[in-house]
Amino acid sequence: MKTATIDLNADAGESDGAWTLGNDAALFPFLTSVNVTCGFHAGDPLTLMKTITQAQQHGLGIGAHPSSPALPGSGRRLLEASPDQVSADVLYQVSALGGMCRTAGVPLRHVKAHGALSTRAWTHAPTAAALARATSDFDLLLPLVVLPATLLESEARRLERPVIPETFPEHASDGRPAPRSMPGPSIHGPQEAARRALMLVKEGRVEAIGGGFFEFQLDTLCLHGDNPEAVPIAHAVRAAPEVSGVQVQPFAIPEVHV
Amino acid sequence: MKTATIDLNADAGESDGAWTLGNDAALFPFLTSVNVTCGFHAGDPLTLMKTITQAQQHGLGIGAHPSSPALPGSGRRLLEASPDQVSADVLYQVSALGGMCRTAGVPLRHVKAHGALSTRAWTHAPTAAALARATSDFDLLLPLVVLPATLLESEARRLERPVIPETFPEHASDGRPAPRSMPGPSIHGPQEAARRALMLVKEGRVEAIGGGFFEFQLDTLCLHGDNPEAVPIAHAVRAAPEVSGVQVQPFAIPEVHV
Amino acid sequence: MKTATIDLNADAGESDGAWTLGNDAALFPFLTSVNVTCGFHAGDPLTLMKTITQAQQHGLGIGAHPSSPALPGSGRRLLEASPDQVSADVLYQVSALGGMCRTAGVPLRHVKAHGALSTRAWTHAPTAAALARATSDFDLLLPLVVLPATLLESEARRLERPVIPETFPEHASDGRPAPRSMPGPSIHGPQEAARRALMLVKEGRVEAIGGGFFEFQLDTLCLHGDNPEAVPIAHAVRAAPEVSGVQVQPFAIPEVHV
Amino acid sequence: MKTATIDLNADAGESDGAWTLGNDAALFPFLTSVNVTCGFHAGDPLTLMKTITQAQQHGLGIGAHPSSPALPGSGRRLLEASPDQVSADVLYQVSALGGMCRTAGVPLRHVKAHGALSTRAWTHAPTAAALARATSDFDLLLPLVVLPATLLESEARRLERPVIPETFPEHASDGRPAPRSMPGPSIHGPQEAARRALMLVKEGRVEAIGGGFFEFQLDTLCLHGDNPEAVPIAHAVRAAPEVSGVQVQPFAIPEVHV
Repeated sequence: MKTATIDLNADAGESDGAWTLGNDAALFPFLTSVNVTCGFHAGDPLTLMKTITQAQQHGLGIGAHPSSPALPGSGRRLLEASPDQVSADVLYQVSALGGMCRTAGVPLRHVKAHGALSTRAWTHAPTAAALARATSDFDLLLPLVVLPATLLESEARRLERPVIPETFPEHASDGRPAPRSMPGPSIHGPQEAARRALMLVKEGRVEAIGGGFFEFQLDTLCLHGDNPEAVPIAHAVRAAPEVSGVQVQPFAIPEVHV
Repeated sequence: MKTATIDLNADAGESDGAWTLGNDAALFPFLTSVNVTCGFHAGDPLTLMKTITQAQQHGLGIGAHPSSPALPGSGRRLLEASPDQVSADVLYQVSALGGMCRTAGVPLRHVKAHGALSTRAWTHAPTAAALARATSDFDLLLPLVVLPATLLESEARRLERPVIPETFPEHASDGRPAPRSMPGPSIHGPQEAARRALMLVKEGRVEAIGGGFFEFQLDTLCLHGDNPEAVPIAHAVRAAPEVSGVQVQPFAIPEVHV
Repeated sequence: MKTATIDLNADAGESDGAWTLGNDAALFPFLTSVNVTCGFHAGDPLTLMKTITQAQQHGLGIGAHPSSPALPGSGRRLLEASPDQVSADVLYQVSALGGMCRTAGVPLRHVKAHGALSTRAWTHAPTAAALARATSDFDLLLPLVVLPATLLESEARRLERPVIPETFPEHASDGRPAPRSMPGPSIHGPQEAARRALMLVKEGRVEAIGGGFFEFQLDTLCLHGDNPEAVPIAHAVRAAPEVSGVQVQPFAIPEVHV
Repeated sequence: MKTATIDLNADAGESDGAWTLGNDAALFPFLTSVNVTCGFHAGDPLTLMKTITQAQQHGLGIGAHPSSPALPGSGRRLLEASPDQVSADVLYQVSALGGMCRTAGVPLRHVKAHGALSTRAWTHAPTAAALARATSDFDLLLPLVVLPATLLESEARRLERPVIPETFPEHASDGRPAPRSMPGPSIHGPQEAARRALMLVKEGRVEAIGGGFFEFQLDTLCLHGDNPEAVPIAHAVRAAPEVSGVQVQPFAIPEVHV
């Protein structure tokens, strides 16, 4: 057995004016942390401010969720960027969200890259380092949420950044989080999602779709908020560890020696 | 009794990448025309092309739905524009959608302004004239859909543009279409919407929310596709005239003397 | 005689990728403060970071220059916004720039609204109050640069915000800053601009184009950096007060009782 | 000797509101064709309309210059796109510009990809095919401007599209057009640009920067309009073939069997 506590996070604030994505209000009661969009892939400033306030009311840990600069609808498509552009883009977004959090009187607790920027940082060391550096430049103590066994994790550790390892209940047969296009637990339903989540939390391993097991040390588990079944899945995943005696709570901030 | 036929239209193509707005697939069976977004307030080009194809499969009349230039989520907020800017913005959008329709082998049958641009053209003659002129510059025979008793209608008629009068089942006590923020038939439910629609079509008048009647000559009736009850409302409104012996079909293109 | 010191400011960071506007490198030696764009009307994050660094090297006071949300090229066109939207937009932008300044190790010294947002705040009290409130929410001590005798000034003073009065060397016959479309000192040449600037600084009054005098108490004087003659004008305006024994230096931060 | 006539083209319409790029008015007298931006990497609709009118007054052949969807300043950075997205993006842009040209009473004579989209199409067959297909879908007879010896050329020929081969006076030692970051004739000055251009036109070969010769069959030669020396270079390049008895005129539209 590995973990006595677990954090549950999801993306939030992705609605944009008339467009809605996800269902933050219904999902927040089951979470302990949220990754709030920073305006590049979604989220006009007023939506961000409301999302921060709503998250605060649910006692959630709030993180910034910067992305590749994106036209509407393109948040999952990568825009070419030099490492200096990545750093400046991330610093801009984390600063914007950080200032809004400070104004709301709530701490900014983590940074987690969104969509195409995140995927790029798994396998491209300069992007990973630029992301870690921008987070560090903003606040030396601010943890970066990372997928284990990626260049993002190793670059963040090399730069001595505080990291929070994270994964998802659904994994493909290569051990990576299952792409959205892939049938998975969200198809198999909430109970299967909960079973996989509990295995991750209690045993530190996940069963890949199509078979095979992968080991993960994680402090936080991510749920897709834009899944049509997001709310029942969150309900089931939240209940599973609690029933099994695992504490569901915001992750602890790692200590770092500055 | 006024009209033996009626056209039912709604906005379409307003999804944008991961964001969805409305439910085109469920709504199209009940419509006879659609107003397809042109990329300014929503709609990446691939979504537009798919929307045109889908509308074509349902035999719907296709119109262009240009808007004020808009950041994501701001399609209902007006951006200041000179008449020359309005004309160029509309011509650009109608050209883009017109070319896509031609490529799909389907005619472009009308132009209808969206959101803030439309509301502005009701009461601001230079905006109304710029909109009518751009439509005319693109195609002399292309009808402009207008709300009766507005400067948009009178400017379009003054410029001898072919016009298609249109209104909505819900009206406020000033005779204008009810703003989205107002409780109305969509709250009262599909049967009330159908009753109001039928009164419009058969009697040429509408009962305002809160009382009072207003007369309207209309060739097409617009349904809000982004209403959560859009599909049952469309179902009820579509059935009502058919049950009463009114033909529901795309509006006839007015003859104009060029 | 009114002022023994004066601050000279201009907008900066308005280039965007391949597009350049103004000539920051040539202008900075003549300024004492800059208003750095915050990404809404111009400025990708990497340009902002470079602009902050460059301003820091010249010892300039750095301010945030938030604007109405803008599509490219539309920074001088107003997008309709509720007061809550204005506040959130300003807070987002000031936070983004403030975080970048903090990372660069340089203080953020003021906030000044850009283009259409600024003009709107002169005459629309809710917009003025929203702007003042957002600045205050971010930092109670952060001064707001205002045009005297506007609703922006009176709202800022009513909310007990620290204010820095500012004007331009060119004024129209209504006493307002001359619109860019109007012929003025930038047409008459640098010497005329310098003469008008000195009159403002020494006598606290400006001669309007077409005649008439208006009184102004000001702590900072703004030069248009995107004027083709911006550099010689800045050179002449900078020299004039120094020759006359007026100290040109960043404005003093007002004391406020929190 | 290869060519008795040559076309000279440059990009145009790249200004956007307050931002200006290039100097269309000064450059047009030396050109015979222009590639007009279509709004994705630059150009609000009013600028496009003015650019078309201005090009028409100079008797230039007008082409559409579609790009990867771009945030301001990012026109030279590629946004990930599936072939279907590329096709729809190109069709949308060519339709928009084509409709504006038709309204202005001037033919659309070619399509040429811009910036990052163009470079991608040189080496990525699905992008090249998507670009050729969209052009063809819009108008079977509309030529596509291509760089010889690229996948864009071979895909366009495989799909039996009419092609117009093009290159630039400056080439790197790999035979590719010199990237903008590289010192070249624009540094060596107008006379060197003219010498290289004439060699291309008369001898069908270009001398690469750093040495080596590459053979090119070309119908049009492209000049960078955003080069600070663009006007004197265009002047010199325009004069060179004329002095040598080569006719400078818009390229002939290839005949195709539909």
